[in-house]
Amino acid sequence: MLKQVIAKIKNWSPAPEVHAHCDGPCGVYDPAAARITAEAVLSMTKKILALEVPDSSDAAATVAYQNTLSRFIAIKEEQAQKTKDDILILWTDYFKPVHLEKYPELHDTFWKAAKLCSACKVEVSLDHANELMDAVQKIHQMFWATKDRDVTYYKAS
Amino acid sequence: MLKQVIAKIKNWSPAPEVHAHCDGPCGVYDPAAARITAEAVLSMTKKILALEVPDSSDAAATVAYQNTLSRFIAIKEEQAQKTKDDILILWTDYFKPVHLEKYPELHDTFWKAAKLCSACKVEVSLDHANELMDAVQKIHQMFWATKDRDVTYYKAS
Amino acid sequence: MLKQVIAKIKNWSPAPEVHAHCDGPCGVYDPAAARITAEAVLSMTKKILALEVPDSSDAAATVAYQNTLSRFIAIKEEQAQKTKDDILILWTDYFKPVHLEKYPELHDTFWKAAKLCSACKVEVSLDHANELMDAVQKIHQMFWATKDRDVTYYKAS
Amino acid sequence: MLKQVIAKIKNWSPAPEVHAHCDGPCGVYDPAAARITAEAVLSMTKKILALEVPDSSDAAATVAYQNTLSRFIAIKEEQAQKTKDDILILWTDYFKPVHLEKYPELHDTFWKAAKLCSACKVEVSLDHANELMDAVQKIHQMFWATKDRDVTYYKAS
Amino acid sequence: MLKQVIAKIKNWSPAPEVHAHCDGPCGVYDPAAARITAEAVLSMTKKILALEVPDSSDAAATVAYQNTLSRFIAIKEEQAQKTKDDILILWTDYFKPVHLEKYPELHDTFWKAAKLCSACKVEVSLDHANELMDAVQKIHQMFWATKDRDVTYYKAS
Amino acid sequence: MLKQVIAKIKNWSPAPEVHAHCDGPCGVYDPAAARITAEAVLSMTKKILALEVPDSSDAAATVAYQNTLSRFIAIKEEQAQKTKDDILILWTDYFKPVHLEKYPELHDTFWKAAKLCSACKVEVSLDHANELMDAVQKIHQMFWATKDRDVTYYKAS
Repeated sequence: MLKQVIAKIKNWSPAPEVHAHCDGPCGVYDPAAARITAEAVLSMTKKILALEVPDSSDAAATVAYQNTLSRFIAIKEEQAQKTKDDILILWTDYFKPVHLEKYPELHDTFWKAAKLCSACKVEVSLDHANELMDAVQKIHQMFWATKDRDVTYYKAS
Repeated sequence: MLKQVIAKIKNWSPAPEVHAHCDGPCGVYDPAAARITAEAVLSMTKKILALEVPDSSDAAATVAYQNTLSRFIAIKEEQAQKTKDDILILWTDYFKPVHLEKYPELHDTFWKAAKLCSACKVEVSLDHANELMDAVQKIHQMFWATKDRDVTYYKAS
Repeated sequence: MLKQVIAKIKNWSPAPEVHAHCDGPCGVYDPAAARITAEAVLSMTKKILALEVPDSSDAAATVAYQNTLSRFIAIKEEQAQKTKDDILILWTDYFKPVHLEKYPELHDTFWKAAKLCSACKVEVSLDHANELMDAVQKIHQMFWATKDRDVTYYKAS
Repeated sequence: MLKQVIAKIKNWSPAPEVHAHCDGPCGVYDPAAARITAEAVLSMTKKILALEVPDSSDAAATVAYQNTLSRFIAIKEEQAQKTKDDILILWTDYFKPVHLEKYPELHDTFWKAAKLCSACKVEVSLDHANELMDAVQKIHQMFWATKDRDVTYYKAS
Repeated sequence: MLKQVIAKIKNWSPAPEVHAHCDGPCGVYDPAAARITAEAVLSMTKKILALEVPDSSDAAATVAYQNTLSRFIAIKEEQAQKTKDDILILWTDYFKPVHLEKYPELHDTFWKAAKLCSACKVEVSLDHANELMDAVQKIHQMFWATKDRDVTYYKAS
Repeated sequence: MLKQVIAKIKNWSPAPEVHAHCDGPCGVYDPAAARITAEAVLSMTKKILALEVPDSSDAAATVAYQNTLSRFIAIKEEQAQKTKDDILILWTDYFKPVHLEKYPELHDTFWKAAKLCSACKVEVSLDHANELMDAVQKIHQMFWATKDRDVTYYKAS
């Protein structure tokens, strides 16, 4: 009997639920995830700019420099991507039409924050890395305001 | 001398460039990537709904059914995530403020398309899978219009 | 000349540096990352245990149940793995021999925390998920104590 | 009773099915996926070769150059790997013994295409990147011919 | 001057090199990687078939069963994919035209082994999992023969 | 009735099982996985140190050198991470309190081995790469001793 019934199923829609960072309705959202990785982007940007180029006649130092520079650029890339992913999860999954009414600048805030992540990859820009930190802090405030919770913003580094 | 100079560097910004699906300015964007994975979401949704539940006394068939159902759900999840990723790359990297002026519904179109990807994960919904296909086709048209190219929309399956 | 020199290089070791969550010396460590994912493990465990099994004659509800259960288990798995990864990065990269002297229980604390992550995958255990949260909180306190910083422990959910 | 029965199960084999790009039998195969990433390989190769090396006394430009070059090489690597993966999915999952009879050069075509992907990683070769595009176009034609469909080959860039 | 020169570069090809499992010419290939994951596929297949279905009135046991079954299927999937990846790296990167002359069945051996990996995903088949182990052992022998080395084949479990 | 029962479930714990490299109790552990990737780290380290820096006036050779160096560093990074992952799976999942009694240096051995993986990323150090190989061999011996099996240690390269 079950077999006949299942043949007729067209679709199924659950009641609206609060999704989360994990793509499941675990309800656990925290902009701190994006803040940690954005801090890494800023730190890597500073360290790349501060790296001293060794004398090209010092082969050992040159190899060490290349290894360090390559890794810093790759880590900046990875952390900027994670920041982008975490920001977009908030935008696509946490924020609902009801929030858009209250925060008309919602789309624009996230669009610009996501574009800043890309800019921090393409460039080695202290200004953009700092602007990304500002954007993440703004999202922190907007997010906790929707929950009527007062969570202190802090930096790990 | 180089060492002193580098200590002063603050930041560096390249000229604006056309980024791409690969997070590099390769200029290769194609909504076909999102269309292929969205087709997989639709196909998996149909196949999950069409799966016949075996008689529970047939142990071999039950194990086979569980293996197939588990895999179909996991593939639907993965393909919906890829669709979401590809759609969001277009939104965050390809589309620029100049496009927003021409397409004021830009943000809303992508927000809803991304939310449809999540809905296709959370549910086994033929309606939502079809709506996702429609959203991808709309993005296809909007995208190629910005490039003044007439690329035929087709489905692989 | 450089060519001859480089042929002689044996190896190169940089000065000791503070590494970080990103495998680069960005210096950004924050146990909040492990706390967010551990919260997801606990949330998913609760939701799996609370899922109501539909009547097997209701085919639509059965498919929906299977989809939800499969996803919750997969998300629990993924988030437990991320918790494990983040905990182990602290153990292998942040904590140094000097910390071991001050915290002789260091190895044992992290070994048990990592084993709890595995237990939360293998089982659907509210007890173990809560013990994981306790372990993460203990690591939060141990970590910030080494930095002489007083960072308030909070939960996002 | 079920318990006893299951102890005897040896194995289970479903009827032959059409698998797909997603490792599930969704039936959605499209060489366009490999074409998009192969275009990115070609584009990145061109851009690497076109990059102007800045004067080494211009520290800001040198850091920018290193960041851009590192990213382009990493993107070329990633996109070549994706091209390889997509090509091999067609070879291992879509093409069947019945196709081998009709296309005796099947194995050789895919072996060479896969080796071209590796060559495009190891080298910065415009010739090999163009040959990879040719190989992808050949696979496009071979693939759609097996489906008796006439799908226009186009490039996104 | 460098700037003008670089504008003329067309392409560059290194001398032929021995590539490796890591997509770099590290020269480290070892079919043991594929053997370890194939063993996991076989082990998971056995454990899925041996799982006792609990009485459906025992809710706690049912949830535990579903968690275990879901995980075993997902692990089988992941390990079969890794086996496929490792096998294909040998085929695409290690084996060269010169080997094809000596082993005319080279392509067929790897095609069938790759298809067995897919079969072990789609099915819960003890026969296919055992055939995959045989295929991996055959590849072990073919591989070490090309290196004139006698490496003992063993199983970890 | 099932619905009421499930509402009461608190948690569930299976009997202790032997877990494995795949995070499932497949029982398949083999330090050979860590040995293969550690060999790649050593090989890449040697090749980076042996790379000849081309004359900066030879633009084609310079681009080729940069591509090769970038890739070698990225591969060293990836393989060191895999070595670390495989080592830590043995420590967190295979080794049990009963082993700790017999091998009191267990924690210290794995802590140092994991730190060596990080050192091999941060540096281009032949010494540390060789020490990592020694650590992996020591783990090989400790591991097989717990199983009372005599498995010959060999290198693939």
